[in-house]
Amino acid sequence: MAPRYAPNLRSRLPVVALLLEACFILLFAFFVDISEGIEDFPHIYAVFQDVHVMVFLGFGFMATFLVRYGFSSSGFSLLVAAMTVQWAILMHGFLLVPRGREMIAVNMQSLVFAEMYAASSLIAMGTMLGKINPVHLLIMALLEVTGFIVNQWLLQTLLRVQPLQSMMLLHIFGAFFGVMVSCVLYRKGIEPVHEKEKLHSKSGLFSMLGTLFLWIFWPSFNSAYLFSLHKINAQFKTVCSTYLSLAVSCVTATSISVLCSSKGKINLAHVQNCMLAGGVTVAVAISVIDQPWVAMTTGLSAALISTLSFRFIKRHMQMAFDCHDTCGVLSVHGIPGILGWCIHLIIQLTISDDFTVAVRFAVYHITILLTTVAMSLAMGTITGILLKWKIWRPPQNRKCFDDQAYWEVSSQLFCT
Amino acid sequence: MAPRYAPNLRSRLPVVALLLEACFILLFAFFVDISEGIEDFPHIYAVFQDVHVMVFLGFGFMATFLVRYGFSSSGFSLLVAAMTVQWAILMHGFLLVPRGREMIAVNMQSLVFAEMYAASSLIAMGTMLGKINPVHLLIMALLEVTGFIVNQWLLQTLLRVQPLQSMMLLHIFGAFFGVMVSCVLYRKGIEPVHEKEKLHSKSGLFSMLGTLFLWIFWPSFNSAYLFSLHKINAQFKTVCSTYLSLAVSCVTATSISVLCSSKGKINLAHVQNCMLAGGVTVAVAISVIDQPWVAMTTGLSAALISTLSFRFIKRHMQMAFDCHDTCGVLSVHGIPGILGWCIHLIIQLTISDDFTVAVRFAVYHITILLTTVAMSLAMGTITGILLKWKIWRPPQNRKCFDDQAYWEVSSQLFCT
Amino acid sequence: MAPRYAPNLRSRLPVVALLLEACFILLFAFFVDISEGIEDFPHIYAVFQDVHVMVFLGFGFMATFLVRYGFSSSGFSLLVAAMTVQWAILMHGFLLVPRGREMIAVNMQSLVFAEMYAASSLIAMGTMLGKINPVHLLIMALLEVTGFIVNQWLLQTLLRVQPLQSMMLLHIFGAFFGVMVSCVLYRKGIEPVHEKEKLHSKSGLFSMLGTLFLWIFWPSFNSAYLFSLHKINAQFKTVCSTYLSLAVSCVTATSISVLCSSKGKINLAHVQNCMLAGGVTVAVAISVIDQPWVAMTTGLSAALISTLSFRFIKRHMQMAFDCHDTCGVLSVHGIPGILGWCIHLIIQLTISDDFTVAVRFAVYHITILLTTVAMSLAMGTITGILLKWKIWRPPQNRKCFDDQAYWEVSSQLFCT
Repeated sequence: MAPRYAPNLRSRLPVVALLLEACFILLFAFFVDISEGIEDFPHIYAVFQDVHVMVFLGFGFMATFLVRYGFSSSGFSLLVAAMTVQWAILMHGFLLVPRGREMIAVNMQSLVFAEMYAASSLIAMGTMLGKINPVHLLIMALLEVTGFIVNQWLLQTLLRVQPLQSMMLLHIFGAFFGVMVSCVLYRKGIEPVHEKEKLHSKSGLFSMLGTLFLWIFWPSFNSAYLFSLHKINAQFKTVCSTYLSLAVSCVTATSISVLCSSKGKINLAHVQNCMLAGGVTVAVAISVIDQPWVAMTTGLSAALISTLSFRFIKRHMQMAFDCHDTCGVLSVHGIPGILGWCIHLIIQLTISDDFTVAVRFAVYHITILLTTVAMSLAMGTITGILLKWKIWRPPQNRKCFDDQAYWEVSSQLFCT
Repeated sequence: MAPRYAPNLRSRLPVVALLLEACFILLFAFFVDISEGIEDFPHIYAVFQDVHVMVFLGFGFMATFLVRYGFSSSGFSLLVAAMTVQWAILMHGFLLVPRGREMIAVNMQSLVFAEMYAASSLIAMGTMLGKINPVHLLIMALLEVTGFIVNQWLLQTLLRVQPLQSMMLLHIFGAFFGVMVSCVLYRKGIEPVHEKEKLHSKSGLFSMLGTLFLWIFWPSFNSAYLFSLHKINAQFKTVCSTYLSLAVSCVTATSISVLCSSKGKINLAHVQNCMLAGGVTVAVAISVIDQPWVAMTTGLSAALISTLSFRFIKRHMQMAFDCHDTCGVLSVHGIPGILGWCIHLIIQLTISDDFTVAVRFAVYHITILLTTVAMSLAMGTITGILLKWKIWRPPQNRKCFDDQAYWEVSSQLFCT
Repeated sequence: MAPRYAPNLRSRLPVVALLLEACFILLFAFFVDISEGIEDFPHIYAVFQDVHVMVFLGFGFMATFLVRYGFSSSGFSLLVAAMTVQWAILMHGFLLVPRGREMIAVNMQSLVFAEMYAASSLIAMGTMLGKINPVHLLIMALLEVTGFIVNQWLLQTLLRVQPLQSMMLLHIFGAFFGVMVSCVLYRKGIEPVHEKEKLHSKSGLFSMLGTLFLWIFWPSFNSAYLFSLHKINAQFKTVCSTYLSLAVSCVTATSISVLCSSKGKINLAHVQNCMLAGGVTVAVAISVIDQPWVAMTTGLSAALISTLSFRFIKRHMQMAFDCHDTCGVLSVHGIPGILGWCIHLIIQLTISDDFTVAVRFAVYHITILLTTVAMSLAMGTITGILLKWKIWRPPQNRKCFDDQAYWEVSSQLFCT
C-alpha cells in the first residue's frame, strides 16, 4: 500500500542545499573577489533593485495563483533564485568573462547578469511547479543555468553573437528547457486537471501583485544590461520601447481574452500572463526596434499570439505531447520569444539593401535560434532523466499542488 | 423580465479597445518619435519607476477594499491606465509642447506627464468604481484626460500659468469630474449602501498595501516633474515637504478617526484614504511651502478636513445630491486640493507687501480655480450624458460591485 | 465582573497623538529648516526610497502573520514609524549633529537616519505586538528612540565610536530593549500560546510579502548611510556583502528548518525570520568584511544560529524568564547582532599583528557592546514600568492579538 504521507525530505533537502552551499563558499573563497573602482555604481543600483524585486518577488508571487500552493510558489522560488545567483556568478565568471589569471569580479554587472540567469531558471521552473519537490527544483534550476551559460559561451565564441543578444534568448531557452523536462517527467495520474490546480479570488490578487511587479519593472529588466555599460541612448530607447510594448500588450491581452470567451468575460490568467508577452518579444528583438509604433505593434502581436496560445495550445500540448505546463511558460516566454526572433529577422531583412548580406544574416540568425533550441531541448532531456531517479523522493500524485507536503501548516507556527 | 446574467461585453470591450489601440498605433506612427540625447536619464528613471508603481499598482490595489470586486479594481485600473498613458502622450504632445513641425518626442518627461494624467483619470474613475462596466471606464478615462489637457492648455495659453502648477490641479480636476459623472449616472436602486459594497479583513490588507505604495512614493509623484527639469533644489524641497506632510497626515487621520468613533475605534477606510490628503494638499500649494513646519501644519489640516469630510460629508452627498462616490474621491482629492489652493492663496497674500499686487494675485488665483472647476464639471456632465447611452450595456444593479459580471471565476481558470 | 469590551481609547489615543504632534510642529517651527545645496540628491534618493519601503511597508507587513491582527500590525507600525521619524529628526539634530547656533537641517541624510531610528523602534515593538494598545506602542517607540540616540551620543562622545558603527547597533539595542519591556510587562494569562496567536495560509503570504521587501532592500538599508556620504567604494562593498550574505542566509534558514523538523517539513516562520539574520550580522560587522566568502560564511552562521534560537530558545525564554516575544525579535535581531559583533572582534584580532593593540581593541569593543546592552536593558525596564500604569488602559487578555479591539470591522466600513 502506498504511504499516506508525503515523502520526508529531512535527509534530502538540507543535505543537498547545505553541501552545495559549502561548495559555493569554497569556490568563492578561491576564485571570487569584490571588485573596486566602479564609478557609476549609484546609477545602476536603482535599476538593479528593480530587477531584484522582479526575480525574488515578482516570479514567486506570480505563481501563487495555485490556491493551495502559495507558500511553495513563493518560498521555493526564493530558495531556487538564492542558490542560482551564486552559481551563476561563478559560471558566468569562469566561462564568459575574459580575465587571464585574475579573480572573478563581483560587481553590479555580474549581479545583474546573475539575476537574469536566475530569471531564466525561474521561467523553466514554472512548467514543473507543483509536480516535483524542492530538491528537484534546485537541481533543475542549477542545470538550466549551466546549460544556458554554456549555450551563451557557444554562441559568443563560435558565432560571435553580441552578449546582449545571446542573453535575451533566456526566455526561449528557459521555456523550451522547462517544456522538455515536463515532457520527460509527465505523470499519468494528473490529467486533465489536478483537483488542487485551481485559483481562488484571493490567491488571484496575490498573483496579480506579482505579475504587476514584473510588468512595471520589465523596462528595467530589458535595459539593465545596457545600464551596466553606460550606453545611455540605447538604454533609454529600450526603456521606452518596452514601456510602450507592454502598455499595448496589456490592452490586447484583455481584449483577446474577452473575444475568446463565449460569455464575454475576462480570464484573469490570460491577462496576467499574456500582458507580459510584449516585454518578452521586445527583449528578443530590441536591437532593431527604433520607432515607437514598431514597439507597439510588436506588443500587440505578442499579446495576440500569446493569448491565443494560452487559450488553445496549452491544453492541446498536454493531450498531444504529454506535456503539462503549470504556468503556461511556453505561451508566455517560448512563443513570444520566437515571435521576437522572427520580428528581428524580418526587420533586418527589410532594411537590408544587399540580397547576399540579407541571406547571410538569415542563415546566421537561424543558426543562433536552432543552436539555442537544440541546446535547451538536450539539456532538458538530460535533466528530466536525472530527476526520474527515485532517490529524490518525488511527491505522490495526491500531494501535488499542495503546501501540506512541504510546509508545517499547523495554525500555531510561531510557537513550535 | 430582466436578464439573469450580466450583459455580454464580447461585442463591446474588444471592439472599442482594439479600435482605439489601432488608432493610437497609427497616430504614433505618423507623429511620435523616441527622442535622443537625454543626458540625465538615469537620474529621473528611478523616480519615474516610483510613479509607475503608484499609477499601475497603488491606485488599483487601493480600490481592492471592495471584497467582491478585487479583480476588477486592479484589472480595470491597469487597463484604463495603459490606454490613458498612450492617449496622454499624444494629446500632451499636440497641445502642450511647442515643437514646430517636428515629431512629438517620447522621453522621460513625457512619460512622467503621461503617468500623471493617468493618475488623474484613475482618481476620476474612483467615484464610479463598481457601478459601470470597463467600456464605460475606458471612455470616461479618455474623456477626462482630454478635458484635463485642454484645461491645462487654456490655463497655460490664456492665463500663463506655470506648467507645474497647472499639472498639480489634477487632483481637483479628477475629483470634480468624477463626482459630476457620478451625479449624472446616479442609480436609484443602490442607495443607501449596496449589499456587495463591503470590506473584508483580507481585502483590507490588499487595500492597505496599495495605499502604502501610494503613501511611500508620493514624494516622488510630487517631485517627478521637477526631476525631469533637473531643478535639484526645488525637487529636494518638494520631497522633504511632502514627506513631512504625509507623516503628520497619517498620525492625524488615525487620531481623528478614533475621535469620530463613538466606540473609540479606528476606521481603516479613514486611515487609508485620509492619510494621503497631506500629499494632495502639499502638491497644490508646493510652490509657496518653504518651511518644514508649514508642510507639517498643511498635512495636519489636510488630514483633519479630509477625515471629517469622509466621515460626515460622504453619505450626505449621496442623500442630498444623488452622488455616490465609491472611493470617497471628493474627500481625498477634491477637498484637500481646494484646501491646498486656499493655503497657496493665503501664504502668497501674507508674504505680499503691496496691496494691489495681492489683490491682483487673488483674482488671478481664483480665476485659475474657477476655470478648472467649471471645465471639470462641464466635461463630467458631457461624459455622464454620453455614458447614459444604453449601447454600452451598463450592468444591472444586482451585478454592481461584483467580479462575476466581468471575470471568469470558475475555480480552474488556468485550464480552460 | 470584567468589562466585555476592549477599553475605549477615544480619550487616550487622539489626545496623546495630537498633543505630541502639536509639540513636534512647534519644535520644528523653532529649530528645523530644510537645508539647501545638496548636490548629489538624486543618487541617494533611490536608496532612501528602498529604506522607506522597508520601514513603512516591510516591517508592518512582516508582522501580519498574526491572522486576526493584520490591520493592527500594518496600521500601528505605520502610525508608530510616522511619529518616530519626526522625533528622531529632532533628537538626532539636537544631540548628534555639531551645528553651533544654526537650525537643524532636514536633508536626505537626516531622513535616512530618521528611518533607521524608526526601524530600531519597530524592532523593539515586535516583541510586544498584540499585547499592548497603540498608545503603549507610541510611548514605547518614542522612548526607545530617545534611549538609542542617547546611547549613540554616549558612544560617539565618550568612546569616539564611528557614527556608522554606533548606528548599526540598532538591531542589538532594539531587540534587548523590546525583550526587557516584554519581561516587565509579562502577562500571566496568555502562556503558553494565546488562542489567537496563530498563522493562516493567507496571512502567511502577506507576511511573506513584507519579509521579501525587507530581504530585497536590505542591501540598501546597510549602505544607505554610506550613500549619504558619497563613499562609493564602501557602499558598493556593503551592497555586495549584504547581498551575498542574505542569499546564503535564505538557503541555510530553509535547510535548518527542515533539519529541525521531525516530519522533514519547512516552517514558514523560520524561513521568513531567519533569512533576514544574515543582513543583521553583516551590518554589525560590515567594516571588517572584505571578501565575498567571509560575507557568505557570516550569512550561513547567522541563519544557523538564528534558526536554532527561533526553534529552541524562543519558547524557553517564555518559560524560564517570563518573556514572551511575539515576532521572535531576540532570535532575528538580538542574537545575530551579537554574533556580528563577535565576528567583528575575531576578524579584527586575526588581522592585528601587535598583541597590545589587539587587547586594547578587544577591551574597547567589549565596552561598546556592554554600554549598549546595559543602556537598552535600563531603558527597557524604565519603559516597562511606565507602561504598567493603568492610565493607558491595557487590553484584556481575551482581546490580545485581535483587531476587533481597535478597528471597526463592520463589513461596511466605507459607508459609516
